Amino acid sequence: MQALKDRIVNEGKVLPGNIIKVDGFLNHRVDCAFMGEIADAFAERFDINNVDVILTAEASGIALASICAYRWNKPMIFAKKAKSDNIEGGLYKSEIMSYTYNKKVTLLVSKQWLAPRTKVLVIDDFMARGEAVRGLCELVGEAGAELVGVGIAVEKGFQGGGDRLREMGINYQALAVIDKATPDEIVFRADED
Amino acid sequence: MQALKDRIVNEGKVLPGNIIKVDGFLNHRVDCAFMGEIADAFAERFDINNVDVILTAEASGIALASICAYRWNKPMIFAKKAKSDNIEGGLYKSEIMSYTYNKKVTLLVSKQWLAPRTKVLVIDDFMARGEAVRGLCELVGEAGAELVGVGIAVEKGFQGGGDRLREMGINYQALAVIDKATPDEIVFRADED
Repeated sequence: MQALKDRIVNEGKVLPGNIIKVDGFLNHRVDCAFMGEIADAFAERFDINNVDVILTAEASGIALASICAYRWNKPMIFAKKAKSDNIEGGLYKSEIMSYTYNKKVTLLVSKQWLAPRTKVLVIDDFMARGEAVRGLCELVGEAGAELVGVGIAVEKGFQGGGDRLREMGINYQALAVIDKATPDEIVFRADED
Repeated sequence: MQALKDRIVNEGKVLPGNIIKVDGFLNHRVDCAFMGEIADAFAERFDINNVDVILTAEASGIALASICAYRWNKPMIFAKKAKSDNIEGGLYKSEIMSYTYNKKVTLLVSKQWLAPRTKVLVIDDFMARGEAVRGLCELVGEAGAELVGVGIAVEKGFQGGGDRLREMGINYQALAVIDKATPDEIVFRADED
């Protein structure tokens, strides 16, 4: 998606440790109109009519996933990241490593809201090593639901998460795959289509 | 907002400790089309043309705030709840008590994205004691920004957070104020308008 690549180049910032900051439009201050354009780009790549629910993980995936779900007239579930008092028993759980916070966290979805055979499209704003998406896919499997696909806005291609999903034969679509990021240069992988 | 009250009565569940669960449509599985209706109800109560940015707190406020911002063609900022490696210095901070997780957390907004004199509308899905909203209002003050109003979908009126904002003279609007919640009965406060 060229408009997304342009914004990453023009507004993104590369920090030490290969951290790519796009928090001016994607995951802190969110350009919600642009999230609508990203939703349209996903809709060109997935058969949205074949989707029952959008699944993401808190927190930063929620903005993009909500606007996708709103445009497509679907419900959206966000997996929670810690056990709060407001979630009762009956949970699907998947433990993942959060490299952002450098600790293990458990993704939780209430069994009540993710029924077997539900057709699930996973949406997230960012993928690096792919731990959050791996956990979300696990939750879909635990529920006996069907994973229709995984859509990611920005993939850090050099950290392996996306390639692992591609090898698994999942219908995986990333709109901007960054193969190299230095303070001087951001290099994108050529589009497959 | 009658449609919201109806859904709380029909789909909500009251747990011990006055916990009101509406996680089937508001804050775990999110009915995104209904969030659009909530946005319209807010738009009847606030002068959206006089708003520059929507501000909420992660995580559960993001879904509603995103869809409001999308409908109103505004950007949305979500305050983060812990220092991650991906946020550099230059932060507005406000410490709040999270009763959901029973611990203190710090709300953070990057100074880069909340400029002085920005007109801010705070949106959140739920208010009980009002700690998150108090923290968000503090962040607005720290930034030298202007608080246009605070819009809440569901207020637990018996926990005091909303009344404190009303007494402060803030343009505060809650779409469903619950004055009493037991497993047998949910009682709403009469609308002011």
